[in-house]
Amino acid sequence: MAELVGNLLVAQSGGPTAVINSSLAGVIQEAGHHDCIEEIYGGANGILGILNEELVDINDEKAKTIQGLRYTPSAALGTCRYKIDFKKKPEKAAKDMDRLFEVFQAHNIRYFFYIGGNDSQDTSHKIHEEAVKRGYEMRVIGVPKTIDNDLPFTDSCPGYGSVIKYAGATVMEVGIDVGSMATDDGSCCIVEVMGRSAGWIAAGTVLAKRGNPANPPHIILLPEIQYDIDAVMAKIKETVSTYGFCVMVVGEGIRDKNGEEIGADKTRLDSFGHPVLAGAAEKIKEYVQGKLNTKTRTVLLGYAQRAAEHFASLTDANNSFACGEAAVRAAVNGQSGFMVKIVRNTEGGTLKWSTDLQELGTVANVEHFVPRDWVSEDGLLPNEKFVEYARPLIEGEVKFPLEGGLPKYVTLEKSKVEKKLPPRS
Amino acid sequence: MAELVGNLLVAQSGGPTAVINSSLAGVIQEAGHHDCIEEIYGGANGILGILNEELVDINDEKAKTIQGLRYTPSAALGTCRYKIDFKKKPEKAAKDMDRLFEVFQAHNIRYFFYIGGNDSQDTSHKIHEEAVKRGYEMRVIGVPKTIDNDLPFTDSCPGYGSVIKYAGATVMEVGIDVGSMATDDGSCCIVEVMGRSAGWIAAGTVLAKRGNPANPPHIILLPEIQYDIDAVMAKIKETVSTYGFCVMVVGEGIRDKNGEEIGADKTRLDSFGHPVLAGAAEKIKEYVQGKLNTKTRTVLLGYAQRAAEHFASLTDANNSFACGEAAVRAAVNGQSGFMVKIVRNTEGGTLKWSTDLQELGTVANVEHFVPRDWVSEDGLLPNEKFVEYARPLIEGEVKFPLEGGLPKYVTLEKSKVEKKLPPRS
Repeated sequence: MAELVGNLLVAQSGGPTAVINSSLAGVIQEAGHHDCIEEIYGGANGILGILNEELVDINDEKAKTIQGLRYTPSAALGTCRYKIDFKKKPEKAAKDMDRLFEVFQAHNIRYFFYIGGNDSQDTSHKIHEEAVKRGYEMRVIGVPKTIDNDLPFTDSCPGYGSVIKYAGATVMEVGIDVGSMATDDGSCCIVEVMGRSAGWIAAGTVLAKRGNPANPPHIILLPEIQYDIDAVMAKIKETVSTYGFCVMVVGEGIRDKNGEEIGADKTRLDSFGHPVLAGAAEKIKEYVQGKLNTKTRTVLLGYAQRAAEHFASLTDANNSFACGEAAVRAAVNGQSGFMVKIVRNTEGGTLKWSTDLQELGTVANVEHFVPRDWVSEDGLLPNEKFVEYARPLIEGEVKFPLEGGLPKYVTLEKSKVEKKLPPRS
Repeated sequence: MAELVGNLLVAQSGGPTAVINSSLAGVIQEAGHHDCIEEIYGGANGILGILNEELVDINDEKAKTIQGLRYTPSAALGTCRYKIDFKKKPEKAAKDMDRLFEVFQAHNIRYFFYIGGNDSQDTSHKIHEEAVKRGYEMRVIGVPKTIDNDLPFTDSCPGYGSVIKYAGATVMEVGIDVGSMATDDGSCCIVEVMGRSAGWIAAGTVLAKRGNPANPPHIILLPEIQYDIDAVMAKIKETVSTYGFCVMVVGEGIRDKNGEEIGADKTRLDSFGHPVLAGAAEKIKEYVQGKLNTKTRTVLLGYAQRAAEHFASLTDANNSFACGEAAVRAAVNGQSGFMVKIVRNTEGGTLKWSTDLQELGTVANVEHFVPRDWVSEDGLLPNEKFVEYARPLIEGEVKFPLEGGLPKYVTLEKSKVEKKLPPRS
């Protein structure tokens, strides 16, 4: 393999996580070890920024800022949800692809790393194929990222361990709070977490039980399973009667027995005539208060769960960093068209994490769901198989500096790389 | 003053906090230093448990469990919202009072400490007056507690510093997350925090700005101020246009220009005919998405904010502990009918915390609100005066042990004290 000399471009895509910047730091710090990589550029706001030739010069950043990315949530380079959609908009997609390669060529980009979820792996795959087709020598490696944990082949997705560590601790804390208030009437708390089609996050909060059936959460509903609301109500009633209270966790996309999203309330229109998205937890709260007459409160973690660096998993952050490093090493070694994946090694009784490569073509647009046999028969609680899988992912805490009682995160200077092309038409 | 020899009873009331157990630890550990205090009992579930003669023997607990209360959220003894209401239910209140004193006498309770908010201070006051009236020698001291920070005379309320430290960090993290996603369309995130009539919690998240107007939160709405929704919408629009995104924090009880709670939606009834409580954040989200066409997401911290020991304020925990200690010292010194209050000493340029006593009669049923001149003229953001007040309250982090990646909190054994009375009629 001939050494490929040129510049590196890295970008971030989709929803941020607590550790997506850790992968970015991994790419940048590993790139510094390879002479064949000349300049290190970042794409501002993912593919969208690259299309607009908005590149930032990472070598202008202070070393301590790059180190600080290992404990800074959000997407430090900015992100986007822009999709190059060859199926629905083939003409626009072809034009976008032309523009991307104009930018790559203008800045002699020979190493391209895209950190993101399913859509981003698809984009990386298309860019790799296009490079081969055009005979433009460039190495493309996808770096996994998604709190949803729904990328296939990888043991787990960077971002997932941190979100379930935080959500697990939160459910645990909410649980002992509600439990200590449980007097004669009983009470119920419903925590809604992210996950529209895959229930990994909701399932992960089962770790808060620490093996004790009495501990919250008592019920966990996943989008993968269709629920009979009456059966759920019966279980809540039974739980309140046994423990005096009930803590339930629901994924935002949970569905009823007809397969309809429970959170989408078609019977209510807002002042502009659109159906109101009441939220799954709020919807079930109405049921519980109405049918069981049990005081019910909700918690909607929303963006807070994926940004909660202040209680992020060190295992997750380290694996994310390792994915970034591995991507660069693979590319420098001549690989292209792969996604880095996390591998769990349990030989010899101690768990060790490593990385490997997976062909992008096999990854793109495949969603990985919680296996049905990792959940109890009634579908209301993940079982020991799930716990065995998830528990190692939340080990350790990310250390971060504080100032005035609040975390002190870093911000990139983002000095702009001079544009060489006319504006995108 | 003659030494009063007898038993101690401590109980917790109202909504739990991250540090209410720290006050309990303060009471218990200080009590251990005074020979005049023989047995240390806890009331299970506040006044309600005492009425039912449900006392637990604190001296049966392990010393390390008591120490663990300093980093364990929830109300370890259990709590209640039971109110002895002489105004609305004078007969029942008189009967309850008789029963309380039967229990006090049966167990030779000579020291009574009630840890709670406004209602609990009122209860403590009534018990103190009743003891004097009955000639039953007992010393009653109220220990303050409320995340709402609405007790008068005390510098701040135990629980408040921790909730704004956690909520402030959360808003900061949500802020950089949303900021990094802000591409051409702009986006908005609304975080709803507790506070039905006092806006201390919402106001406290202003600390996340760290003095920089560009930093989130960009807008904070308090229940104390009536808002013209159109003016709020205009400010959101301006913020999105300036920064590309907007993060807003609202107290749950915020009101519109007619003084109506924004979160209470009278136009919508649930299947049982009750008005749906949509939540203030959800309601404003509908406005923003409808009127400004700006993508908006909400976060509802709910019980999570008051239980978030994993990022609690050490200053708050220490002050809470000191309040418990001071209550016992005051009682042993012959005082009764007081609430402990926190005092801030800034002489000599360094801040020192101490405690003092405040007559319960002056405290009961007085609510302390955010001063109007601590908020900007347009009412949309707390100002420097507020920041100067709140900043010291979040200093330091409570340390806690971890196991398997999650906090390891303690639970009381709660061995029951033998009952001496017939059941409550």
